[in-house]
Amino acid sequence: MKNTDRLKSEFLKVREWVESGMDDIIPKVEEYPSIIHQSVRYSIFAGGKRIRPLLVYLSYLLFDKDFDKILSVACAVEMVHTYSLVHDDLPAMDDDDLRRGKPTNHRVFGEAVATLAGDTLLTMVFELLPERLLKKKFKPGTILEFFTLLAGNIGSRGLVGGQVVDIISQGKEISLETLEYIHKNKTSKLFEVCILGAAIFGNASKKEKQILKNFAYNFGMLFQIVDDILDVEGDTELLGKPVGSDTDLDKATYPALMGLDKAKDMAKEYRDNAILDLEKLKKKNTDILTDLTEYIFIRQE
Amino acid sequence: MKNTDRLKSEFLKVREWVESGMDDIIPKVEEYPSIIHQSVRYSIFAGGKRIRPLLVYLSYLLFDKDFDKILSVACAVEMVHTYSLVHDDLPAMDDDDLRRGKPTNHRVFGEAVATLAGDTLLTMVFELLPERLLKKKFKPGTILEFFTLLAGNIGSRGLVGGQVVDIISQGKEISLETLEYIHKNKTSKLFEVCILGAAIFGNASKKEKQILKNFAYNFGMLFQIVDDILDVEGDTELLGKPVGSDTDLDKATYPALMGLDKAKDMAKEYRDNAILDLEKLKKKNTDILTDLTEYIFIRQE
Repeated sequence: MKNTDRLKSEFLKVREWVESGMDDIIPKVEEYPSIIHQSVRYSIFAGGKRIRPLLVYLSYLLFDKDFDKILSVACAVEMVHTYSLVHDDLPAMDDDDLRRGKPTNHRVFGEAVATLAGDTLLTMVFELLPERLLKKKFKPGTILEFFTLLAGNIGSRGLVGGQVVDIISQGKEISLETLEYIHKNKTSKLFEVCILGAAIFGNASKKEKQILKNFAYNFGMLFQIVDDILDVEGDTELLGKPVGSDTDLDKATYPALMGLDKAKDMAKEYRDNAILDLEKLKKKNTDILTDLTEYIFIRQE
Repeated sequence: MKNTDRLKSEFLKVREWVESGMDDIIPKVEEYPSIIHQSVRYSIFAGGKRIRPLLVYLSYLLFDKDFDKILSVACAVEMVHTYSLVHDDLPAMDDDDLRRGKPTNHRVFGEAVATLAGDTLLTMVFELLPERLLKKKFKPGTILEFFTLLAGNIGSRGLVGGQVVDIISQGKEISLETLEYIHKNKTSKLFEVCILGAAIFGNASKKEKQILKNFAYNFGMLFQIVDDILDVEGDTELLGKPVGSDTDLDKATYPALMGLDKAKDMAKEYRDNAILDLEKLKKKNTDILTDLTEYIFIRQE
């Protein structure tokens, strides 16, 4: 149980760290026009697990312990994640009423403001990073390398591409290949930004970056398959969203496509591959990332 | 008439230049998932005036003639502009059916894909610039300076902020101050990106940047007031959108707030100030920018 306690304490520490960072970065609700900053803050502080900032933190730990240097990166990935949730929840997309147990952004602020809140968050990421990272003495070239990774992984060849295929596949029979495309792009690609981003700022070698890229892929697929499984077997209260919401939308999921048992086997395989990647790194401090991978496999929320 | 001919030829040249640049940058429609690239290309190649790329071009001309170096910047500002139009046209926002004389993006591709096409364009800008500008031998620090200007001017303290206030003001009586806020943020701030952006890449002095910032403000306000006037007096066919569409949305405009004659006087004042700014620069090659300013004042489309 010691491992679980340590992981819990890392989760708590990183949550506090990144939430205080975002509170500094995002304009206060008093700032004109107030409604947009209310809307942005509503979704940002709706209480997520902050797993993406945790991934930035734990991956940076492989190279350096001066976490203060990459706080803005940890904030940025959570802000990108939140932007994508706010847009995904819109009536024209998944039409979700609940997110993290609370009414979705457009249910509170209306569709127009919710759309603009997403736009604001995405834009803010590119505004906040240069100044903050330069102050931490990162080289401009390193910052640009990260920008290319980030923007490349969240556009039509990444996050948005995954969402597009997800949307146009609703109610259709799709192949396992298409489902993998959706999960890889909607989930793994942003995890890759977190993990590989930390590696870029940690001056990782080319070989280390390649291994971490593989780890991010396996970790992301594991995360998403477990998410699919929880949508069938999970507990609404723990999840903060109704169980079966994917089925209601007629979304393809691993359990729907291959049955629950085979989906669980597949999750196991991705877990094993991810842990193997971490071993291949031959670095100190991979143990908390290993614990996290195990936790993702057994998580209930 | 010689001046008008020269301006026309610049318009044509820049249009061809930037459209070929965007054709290179944006994934082809064949690329998976095809629908998003169809949607992005539909709005990008719907035939705008390309006035923002022209501003990049003409402002860079004040400092350097090697335009090839800033083609990606000219493409980027047009892509940001198009993203903002696609989102502004959405049913939850202005609910426009026509844009540049053609059905709006969501009328062709649906709201979900249109929202994602906007997201794609915004993201793509930050992906395309680092690699292309580094190849042109701009310093990483210079590129980051431009990123900060760009992202800072199009978020909730710029373009999106203006759109938010525009949306929440519909149907309400607003002050001249609020109307100025909307126009400054929705229009001038992106013009500032074009003009000041070119100055950054042209190694302008601090003083030159300050003057060009003022010019961008005056030019943008002029552009927007004339837009308001054309919405009252213009020709639907030339404009590519119905005359009176602002009035239909119960939008505040300068003519509505102060009457047509006073609005025209105000346009004249901004024109004069913009031209004065150009004179203050004491640079060669300001004459086409002066011609452009005059053209904006008398434009019918």
